[in-house]
Amino acid sequence: MSGTPDKKRSATDVVVVGGGVIGMSIGWRAAQAGLAVTIAEAATAGSGATHAAAGMLAPVTEADFGEQDLIALNLAAAERFGPFAEELEAASGRPTGYRRAGTLAVAIDRDQAEALERMHRFRLSLGLEGERLSGRECRRLEPALAPRVLGGVLAPGDHHVDPRAVVYALRSALSAVGAELLEGAPVRELVTGDGRVLGVRLADGRELAADRIVIAGGASAGAIEGLPAEARVPVRPVKGQILRLRATAAGPQPLGRVVRTEDFYAVPREDGTLVVGATMEERGFDTTVTAGAVLDLLRYAYEVVPGIAELELAELGAGLRPTAPDNRPIVGDGALEGLVWATGHWRNGVLLAPLTAAAVAGLLTGQPLPYELEPFSPGRFARSPQPAGSASA
Amino acid sequence: MSGTPDKKRSATDVVVVGGGVIGMSIGWRAAQAGLAVTIAEAATAGSGATHAAAGMLAPVTEADFGEQDLIALNLAAAERFGPFAEELEAASGRPTGYRRAGTLAVAIDRDQAEALERMHRFRLSLGLEGERLSGRECRRLEPALAPRVLGGVLAPGDHHVDPRAVVYALRSALSAVGAELLEGAPVRELVTGDGRVLGVRLADGRELAADRIVIAGGASAGAIEGLPAEARVPVRPVKGQILRLRATAAGPQPLGRVVRTEDFYAVPREDGTLVVGATMEERGFDTTVTAGAVLDLLRYAYEVVPGIAELELAELGAGLRPTAPDNRPIVGDGALEGLVWATGHWRNGVLLAPLTAAAVAGLLTGQPLPYELEPFSPGRFARSPQPAGSASA
Repeated sequence: MSGTPDKKRSATDVVVVGGGVIGMSIGWRAAQAGLAVTIAEAATAGSGATHAAAGMLAPVTEADFGEQDLIALNLAAAERFGPFAEELEAASGRPTGYRRAGTLAVAIDRDQAEALERMHRFRLSLGLEGERLSGRECRRLEPALAPRVLGGVLAPGDHHVDPRAVVYALRSALSAVGAELLEGAPVRELVTGDGRVLGVRLADGRELAADRIVIAGGASAGAIEGLPAEARVPVRPVKGQILRLRATAAGPQPLGRVVRTEDFYAVPREDGTLVVGATMEERGFDTTVTAGAVLDLLRYAYEVVPGIAELELAELGAGLRPTAPDNRPIVGDGALEGLVWATGHWRNGVLLAPLTAAAVAGLLTGQPLPYELEPFSPGRFARSPQPAGSASA
Repeated sequence: MSGTPDKKRSATDVVVVGGGVIGMSIGWRAAQAGLAVTIAEAATAGSGATHAAAGMLAPVTEADFGEQDLIALNLAAAERFGPFAEELEAASGRPTGYRRAGTLAVAIDRDQAEALERMHRFRLSLGLEGERLSGRECRRLEPALAPRVLGGVLAPGDHHVDPRAVVYALRSALSAVGAELLEGAPVRELVTGDGRVLGVRLADGRELAADRIVIAGGASAGAIEGLPAEARVPVRPVKGQILRLRATAAGPQPLGRVVRTEDFYAVPREDGTLVVGATMEERGFDTTVTAGAVLDLLRYAYEVVPGIAELELAELGAGLRPTAPDNRPIVGDGALEGLVWATGHWRNGVLLAPLTAAAVAGLLTGQPLPYELEPFSPGRFARSPQPAGSASA
């Protein structure tokens, strides 16, 4: 899309700002496409929102009214996930924890049952797959469910993956393909000139020159310095608190697949972990674990799966979902030559990583954005720029 | 009570097995009395039950039917605590967190209110101090209490202390008085001969010779090796899970004094910590933090003090209360010359530490056991020895 600036040769073709699951996936795909890639991560790779993420891949169970283009995107992303995981496992020699186990959404009172039924009909009307089950049928699938579960809907195509395992695998895959992963390397600002990006300057003063900068910096992507106001995108953090329970001698892993209500979800892993999440909070850049959130999550989970009481409460945590004012992804070319955005993935960063990575690697090698991503380009904020955080609920 | 054995001079006068608040307090008092003292602690000093303990000093609020001799003991212990804390602070130059703030027991439903009233009358009949308060009066004292609090009883003489601060202070005081604190030094077995104790053997093979051995090893005191069966005492662990909340910008410290119901207690510290405990569980030597216990504690606390929801959930933990079959302390000479027991302190180890320490230091220097401790001597288990753990609920 543009040549190399006259003043200097780039030290690298692409700098990816942010080493979460999005940035690492982009780096891997871009390096596979033949580009020289450097990923600059402020802390440890995968230690931000990715570290907190449960890894649900749930285009059907997460499908909501009035979001047809987002549903189409999520479905396309889910289709890509299996091949992505297989390729990543082969490239890295590491597991990703990808499991095609389906997701069971249940209701424990009449309000929840009616809401679930409305949502089920809506999803069927879109041609999505789902099977309505009685309470007894739910308990046949998942014997740990409480007697109070009235019924549910099984989404056989909604799978899950272990985001921390994906990070480990991506770390190896990046290394194998020769991409550079800089950790503990916060980007202080973008370096621009002649109406285009020239590189980034790190907090320690080092400058990385590159023709292309991909900003995959999660919730802080909107605050990056060195950009003219019209080239920024509005991203805010939406806090999610999440728990990791662990099977014990007294309390075995109670679930075989993802179980959820409208209040919580529980994602089982084969190592005995049960991930229980997640709150949705507008609190700015705050990752404090609060008593109230832990109480809520445990209470919701206990009502549906009483056996969790005997599990170890092994880890408390919080992450910040990078969120646009319309809660939709921001992927595509920015308002400055050489600048690409890959943020705003909200609740679906893990699910969308393979699709976003392929799309961004495509942009970087001269291909157009795939049609599923067209509604989500950064350009939609160009006419009425909003400062980050202005759209808080 | 006996001379030095002929075969060797003791390397030290007294070995104290266990470096919790009991063992450290004994070591301090014994060294002050002129004895050469070595404390052998398996892990880090104060890292066991002491580390989990909330530090309530509540002879009145904990007074229960049919336990008059234990109540007398606890009252005597509470009287000693103020002077002990003052002396320890002076000797160490460190704070203990001792606060004379009183304890407010409240009721949030009619059953709890009736039980509280029965207990209040019983305690008044023993001459204990307590003031019955309406819900409104409770909220005047503690504005963070929920509207559903129906009433309460204020025990103005039930105070609290910070057990971790006490451990830090004892560490300095021990050093100042020349007592030796060995950490990471598990005792493998007692060394006996000629019908008396001769010392202890550590796990690393070292032998510490001493005329007197004080076993203050908490819940594992009953399992110590090298003792003839008739010289053992039955002690089992009673697990207590406990939470540490912490004030945040959004959630300040809600309480000014200890608040409790029959289900939980909350102990405020001036650094913004709120300690919420504790479960009572018969689980053997298990210190797993479970989802069910955290849920229960948070739910109980939230019902009474809704403001806890905004506090940080800063620490989860569990401790093992050393517990005799009759749930009463075991303090005094053992059934082997030179052997002294100081265990079984159950829920009251911090409260009883000053009194037990003074009594044991007295025994070691030829004084009789104080009368308050007479009902709690190890001899009560001599006629019908029970193996450790046999009295589990």
